[in-house]
Amino acid sequence: MSDQSSIQEVKRPERATADTVAKLAGVSRVAVSRAFNPHASLKKEKRELILKIAKDVGYTPDMAARALVTRRSHLVGVIVPDVCSPWESQEIDALTTALQAEGFATLLFKTRTDQSMDERLLTYMKGFNLDSIIAFAENVTPDTLAHSLGRAVPIYVSYSEDGSLPNQPKSTSVFDRLIVDQKNGIDQAVALMQAYGCKRFAYLGGTTTSLANTERERAFKCVMNERDLPEPLVLQGDYTYESALASTLDLFQVGEGVDGIFSANDVGAFGVIDALRFKLGLRVPEDVKVVGFDDIAQSGWLSYNLTTVKIDLEDRVRALVRLILRRLKDPNAPAMIETLQTRLIVRGTVGS
Amino acid sequence: MSDQSSIQEVKRPERATADTVAKLAGVSRVAVSRAFNPHASLKKEKRELILKIAKDVGYTPDMAARALVTRRSHLVGVIVPDVCSPWESQEIDALTTALQAEGFATLLFKTRTDQSMDERLLTYMKGFNLDSIIAFAENVTPDTLAHSLGRAVPIYVSYSEDGSLPNQPKSTSVFDRLIVDQKNGIDQAVALMQAYGCKRFAYLGGTTTSLANTERERAFKCVMNERDLPEPLVLQGDYTYESALASTLDLFQVGEGVDGIFSANDVGAFGVIDALRFKLGLRVPEDVKVVGFDDIAQSGWLSYNLTTVKIDLEDRVRALVRLILRRLKDPNAPAMIETLQTRLIVRGTVGS
Repeated sequence: MSDQSSIQEVKRPERATADTVAKLAGVSRVAVSRAFNPHASLKKEKRELILKIAKDVGYTPDMAARALVTRRSHLVGVIVPDVCSPWESQEIDALTTALQAEGFATLLFKTRTDQSMDERLLTYMKGFNLDSIIAFAENVTPDTLAHSLGRAVPIYVSYSEDGSLPNQPKSTSVFDRLIVDQKNGIDQAVALMQAYGCKRFAYLGGTTTSLANTERERAFKCVMNERDLPEPLVLQGDYTYESALASTLDLFQVGEGVDGIFSANDVGAFGVIDALRFKLGLRVPEDVKVVGFDDIAQSGWLSYNLTTVKIDLEDRVRALVRLILRRLKDPNAPAMIETLQTRLIVRGTVGS
Repeated sequence: MSDQSSIQEVKRPERATADTVAKLAGVSRVAVSRAFNPHASLKKEKRELILKIAKDVGYTPDMAARALVTRRSHLVGVIVPDVCSPWESQEIDALTTALQAEGFATLLFKTRTDQSMDERLLTYMKGFNLDSIIAFAENVTPDTLAHSLGRAVPIYVSYSEDGSLPNQPKSTSVFDRLIVDQKNGIDQAVALMQAYGCKRFAYLGGTTTSLANTERERAFKCVMNERDLPEPLVLQGDYTYESALASTLDLFQVGEGVDGIFSANDVGAFGVIDALRFKLGLRVPEDVKVVGFDDIAQSGWLSYNLTTVKIDLEDRVRALVRLILRRLKDPNAPAMIETLQTRLIVRGTVGS
């Protein structure tokens, strides 16, 4: 009795689906998906039509439901030891903006203060079915992450020239990497300090577990050597203003002092400058030249006006987003690499 | 032929579920869930047993699947105009840590630079099925959010004494709020400036669309009036270092200058101080007293050593987390409120 063809009619289901909307709008499911991605490209009229129909039938995409079907969560995890350090917060800010423009939301995971990651945190992270994760080798190895997170191929930032992760067990898992070539910028910094007559140099390090710090110290020593400059003093630090201030006091009150200080990050350089000026009565740059690393927004402030090695934040974020998109397009490809340069920003803390 | 009772035996399914783990471990499903929440309280032995069995049977909780069943996504959204402003990044850092300790991950959503939120972004946010969302009235009204996000009851930060959201249409939706009582701290600041002889005051504002700024200016004027001090000059700003520097130059080079400046945030106060010292050759605090608002980490740095009105970040984050937990426990309760005080931190920019 029933006519087969009438079954073909569009029925409005209890819960409207993307298919319903696609059929009513006469567009593909992909177009419906794009219409709901706040920044995906789609013709204005098409998007408006789709959103209007979606509103009429009460359809909104449910990421949880969608994640089960598409295996895409639209979530990118970032493992951070400390969001509120200015460099990291500026990076997360820029990354969140760039990822949102591609339809991804940024999920933050905090490691403990000691940068250790335990299995429970990894299992917890796995539950979110991340599309990608940006990690640091000092927090978690690629093998652990690959084992724990399943499909998400992690992205590591490497500061060594060959993209390796020093002091780490050799990885058997595929991971992508952003290589930051810091030697070029550090060489420009040392050249300028040398030109202004620096004879005795100190390197103020970051936390000893930080691979960025290890490689920065190595690059600095290498440059000093290539320029026939003496072995620098190495001060242990932890990237904070407070420890930089204390180390500088020790260096001049207990030790002999130096006339050039290279800090592993800008915040440390601020501590160095304030110790020299406000605690030791020395002038920057006349008595001591100071260079930082990062070029955070605060480095341009007149109280510091810091000469520093810049990692271009926009370039860095673009490279990370490119790695994520390339990998999602080709989940089984071999390891992917993007490379970033550094350069010196000349301001007022090296001069005569 | 088949014995009914044998059907009762535990079978290991293709994909292990929380029930499987619960049965094998002889615990409740809730205990299994708690074992996977990195910081939920559970006896150490019990947790280890559950995690071991889960590992053996290859079970991990899938948040997407779980979200469909429990209607909990374990995601808390934060709408931020600008993560990299130091105050916001320090708040997000503390909030992420505190939420993770309760088993929630933090999802960041960026509004446009003009702080407008469009329907597409709201629909996109809805897709994540957030458990809670922290919002600002200048970005989106409670009614829009309640309409768009469904079950998540939004939390607003209010700076007016009665917890209202000024200049906003009256809301018909339930929303929870954190009320920041800023008048007390501002009164302490003005009292100290008055004690050191300030006669002419300026208020350096944040962005004009910011409700925090509107209420801060209102509280400042109210305190001035109560202390029989003259109406302050009001300088328009936008919370940035750069605009604060420019406004201060205008105030002294075009205008008559003042001897006390209250800035709507600390970063603005740094711009004021640098303009006075490095561009105008004036001394702080001898010639001009400066007070900020927030007490970010940088305010203690010796180059600024800023006297400022503090919002206690830990208290603030605890209050926000408490609002989230209270609301999830009782989704249909009337509007909930937490209140925070402010106080003056006395450093070196007000004195003689």
